[in-house]
Amino acid sequence: MTDSRTRFAEKAVLARLSRALDLPRFERGHVWLAGAGPGDPGLITAIGLSAIAEADVILYDALVDPRVLRLAKPGAELVYAGKRAGVKSCKQTDISRTLVSLAQKRKRVLRLKGGDPMVFGRGAEEALALARARVPFRIVPGVTAGIGGLAYAGIPLTHRDINHSVTFITGQGADGRPPPLDWAAIARASPTLVIYMGHKYLADITRKLMHAGMGGDTPAALVVNASGRNQRTHVGTVATISQLAETSGTPAIIVIGENVNLRERMDWLGALAGKILKTGPIGGTALSA
Amino acid sequence: MTDSRTRFAEKAVLARLSRALDLPRFERGHVWLAGAGPGDPGLITAIGLSAIAEADVILYDALVDPRVLRLAKPGAELVYAGKRAGVKSCKQTDISRTLVSLAQKRKRVLRLKGGDPMVFGRGAEEALALARARVPFRIVPGVTAGIGGLAYAGIPLTHRDINHSVTFITGQGADGRPPPLDWAAIARASPTLVIYMGHKYLADITRKLMHAGMGGDTPAALVVNASGRNQRTHVGTVATISQLAETSGTPAIIVIGENVNLRERMDWLGALAGKILKTGPIGGTALSA
Repeated sequence: MTDSRTRFAEKAVLARLSRALDLPRFERGHVWLAGAGPGDPGLITAIGLSAIAEADVILYDALVDPRVLRLAKPGAELVYAGKRAGVKSCKQTDISRTLVSLAQKRKRVLRLKGGDPMVFGRGAEEALALARARVPFRIVPGVTAGIGGLAYAGIPLTHRDINHSVTFITGQGADGRPPPLDWAAIARASPTLVIYMGHKYLADITRKLMHAGMGGDTPAALVVNASGRNQRTHVGTVATISQLAETSGTPAIIVIGENVNLRERMDWLGALAGKILKTGPIGGTALSA
Repeated sequence: MTDSRTRFAEKAVLARLSRALDLPRFERGHVWLAGAGPGDPGLITAIGLSAIAEADVILYDALVDPRVLRLAKPGAELVYAGKRAGVKSCKQTDISRTLVSLAQKRKRVLRLKGGDPMVFGRGAEEALALARARVPFRIVPGVTAGIGGLAYAGIPLTHRDINHSVTFITGQGADGRPPPLDWAAIARASPTLVIYMGHKYLADITRKLMHAGMGGDTPAALVVNASGRNQRTHVGTVATISQLAETSGTPAIIVIGENVNLRERMDWLGALAGKILKTGPIGGTALSA
């Protein structure tokens, strides 16, 4: 581990990339809130890479791949700040306080989250806490699971014959209960719906969507470990997907809509491993080219 | 130019990153559909970087930063395939045909688009064309403007006291006309609305939203060249934003919702340049912590 860290951190490599792309310099006493992408370590951004190589301390979430963390410089402190373990030290206010306190000690502090830091995480809250404490910070966006993770399952977020809009919802409200949404409007606003952290209340959510008029036969998919080593995709319908979720495992991103049907034609990851993709005319309600 | 290309393309640098992150190998005769992110060249992903350095041909869109293209290997062919110029050779079917034909000539073909290739571009259509022609391909997700671009303007896509959902819409339908959406549902489904390519029909769209019951005083912002060199943010309301758009320039990403109000507290880019961020208790309808 130390060996690979040392190799990568060679100043020359980083400096070259930095110059070519005008990457920002990570200053002492600054905090960067960065997204590591949905799973595949290759989806980290160039700024994210340079942040990892320059940070003095990295507070990382459960979904960050260890291969990415291995690029930290020798001596960098790696702190697990995921909420999965549910330990007391990982409360949100504690994380924000830790970020502020480390920055005030003149550390270069990297807060590394899965996906994008501003999508249904607590990134905005962390940023507000830093601003309140007058700690200089930067937001480093990442690839979000609801877009990039689905692409790895061969499901495009949009196709012009299917959807001119897409709605992202979180499956859990701030209080840990089902989100307080206008389900009638949600069911009709977009032909495509992406659900983050939807596992726990999926039966409740799909029941509300069907009650609001969404057809039970609307295609749905659940992608576990999207873009990661053990990605698994379960395809069903709005009526069946919550049952599939019971045994599928987490983390999972859920998508509802006809986009799911394109998977049999666009599962490039499967195709690279030998799967034969469907071709020929496209049927279905919306796609009839 | 040749000099900086040569420097970066040094096999050693790339090989190191490739090994550390288990990056996929770009094989001859394959096409990679990649997103370059919203503007800042530092938002390209590691896979994107390695694709640029290894590609034999790169077909790129208008929104791809030249600093990114400069990382191409010596001798790589760079082909502009943007639609802005409106020239005949850039029709969608022609792009798909070109991708297939180049792959069949055993080239490593990189199709490099701004943002993410599966978000309101024609990425899915290009992927389907490749699959139909039995050309092996890979999708390389990118940071989308509606998330990462907004973050550079200090506007978080979500905050748990503001929105449990967000709707992305395209401002132009497949036929170049306003998108055929259920505006009543769109106006009520999510407290936050992000509009891609919304410039042209913004007056029409905001009128429909207000007609559907959205308050004219709902905060709105328009971010031009989001995350790019000349980023400019215009803040107004649903009632005024289309007027601001008339003189703002393009490309622009538009966001509607209370998230916009957080900009005065979270404009980190402004703060790094000396702007004093607002602190103290947060008021407003939803945010009253």
